[in-house]
Amino acid sequence: MTYCVGIKLDAGLVFLSDSRTNAGLDQISTFRKMMVYERPGDRFMVMLSAGNLSISQSVREILQVEKLDNGTGVPLTIWNATSMFDAVRVLGSAVRRVYDQDGPSLKQAGIEFNASFIFGGQIGKEAMRLFLVYSAGNFIEATRETCYFQIGESKYGKPVLDRMITPSTPLDEASKCALVSMDSTLKSNLSVGLPLDLLVYDAGALQSSQIVCIDEQNPYFQMIRTTWGQKLRQVFEDIEDPQWNGGQTQYPLRPASARYEPMKKITTPSEKII
Amino acid sequence: MTYCVGIKLDAGLVFLSDSRTNAGLDQISTFRKMMVYERPGDRFMVMLSAGNLSISQSVREILQVEKLDNGTGVPLTIWNATSMFDAVRVLGSAVRRVYDQDGPSLKQAGIEFNASFIFGGQIGKEAMRLFLVYSAGNFIEATRETCYFQIGESKYGKPVLDRMITPSTPLDEASKCALVSMDSTLKSNLSVGLPLDLLVYDAGALQSSQIVCIDEQNPYFQMIRTTWGQKLRQVFEDIEDPQWNGGQTQYPLRPASARYEPMKKITTPSEKII
Repeated sequence: MTYCVGIKLDAGLVFLSDSRTNAGLDQISTFRKMMVYERPGDRFMVMLSAGNLSISQSVREILQVEKLDNGTGVPLTIWNATSMFDAVRVLGSAVRRVYDQDGPSLKQAGIEFNASFIFGGQIGKEAMRLFLVYSAGNFIEATRETCYFQIGESKYGKPVLDRMITPSTPLDEASKCALVSMDSTLKSNLSVGLPLDLLVYDAGALQSSQIVCIDEQNPYFQMIRTTWGQKLRQVFEDIEDPQWNGGQTQYPLRPASARYEPMKKITTPSEKII
Repeated sequence: MTYCVGIKLDAGLVFLSDSRTNAGLDQISTFRKMMVYERPGDRFMVMLSAGNLSISQSVREILQVEKLDNGTGVPLTIWNATSMFDAVRVLGSAVRRVYDQDGPSLKQAGIEFNASFIFGGQIGKEAMRLFLVYSAGNFIEATRETCYFQIGESKYGKPVLDRMITPSTPLDEASKCALVSMDSTLKSNLSVGLPLDLLVYDAGALQSSQIVCIDEQNPYFQMIRTTWGQKLRQVFEDIEDPQWNGGQTQYPLRPASARYEPMKKITTPSEKII
């Protein structure tokens, strides 16, 4: 499995990916899932991939040469596209090409054509954009209301993103949040693993030097892993325990009036359930 | 969907269930998923259910009358079982009976026979036990190493349980943790909804009066929802932001030596990917 997250903020973009690939529990390997396409001053694009590794590797390879006829006589590529929308269309087309090549054989072997991609960046003077590309080559775009996308094993790490991220979150804070989200996922799911690739892009820069590969020894990620767990426990302990019998609390667990009664107990075999 | 959790601690048992049932997004209703079977001083059992509602309702109904031939001449029921193991076998048998009745027609309609149950309690002088029952009627039992089970939409709420719960956790703290886990799930998934049923059982009591239905107005759950989010944010803000360029930090994001290099950027169409 995989866990990747891409976040679009007012200040820029944050991308984080793990690197575990597994075919069954006893075939675990490390494959990195982030690709950076950059022509400084002209365009900056990042692709994160999840799903069947043979599909996503083929998509990457084909993306470099994929040409989309857009009726102008000059075929569209990710290197000459004048908008991120056009660039993501090229990616969608690469996905469809792999589907045409491999889909029927995969289907015959009972294997789902399973792949998804986060694709974001900035081209020229256009604003930054962030897309989620599905295995059919179709895609959706992040907005101010939903400013991040996840692919792969996304549920464990979603609550902290939902609580912390808004478009005005600073880049450093969003990177920290992505790492906490990754930490929760690593803790609960074996199929997601280190090293991680983290990239931060400043709006308008059209290049990035903020890119790092984080392994077990990384001091910052080690600090996050230890501190977050400890502090979470501290916060947790600070919250008042439930008090069944009222007492001196401001927050009774059983208030005097409530809309629903507790579940009726069944006390004999003959008792009806409902 | 559903979210239910059952926790077995040295001090007792904690059960929490939501009450949302949906068939598509526009058919949402409230069905409570906790059943309590109690004969004070003799036995105390709780069942939580997830999956297809028609299946789990049938299982509940049949469980009240299910008889399992165990070769003694006196058929086994949940009311005369002398161990929780025997009682959960009766539940497994009830699940299989519903499968025999409804399975073929469901299959014909392309509907999966999808149901799972958390079943726990205590009978007589036996120790408390907690089981997870699958749709085939087979089951597994919680141990000291894995002392909780979840059914339904379980991933969002798993990280906090993984971080907080051990067999020695006090009952009140575990109830609080279950509620925080539920809050994270409610926040990230529409198919889980209030009211909640919370039940706490003290080891050896063979009955429980700690049972409550928690709705939107519940002061304790309201406090959890507000406080947990706020404090989480506070903790989050207290953690040092990543620093790309070293500086005065103890925890560099880019240490002097690292096992892996950052991802190589692709800068021209002709560049090879790997």
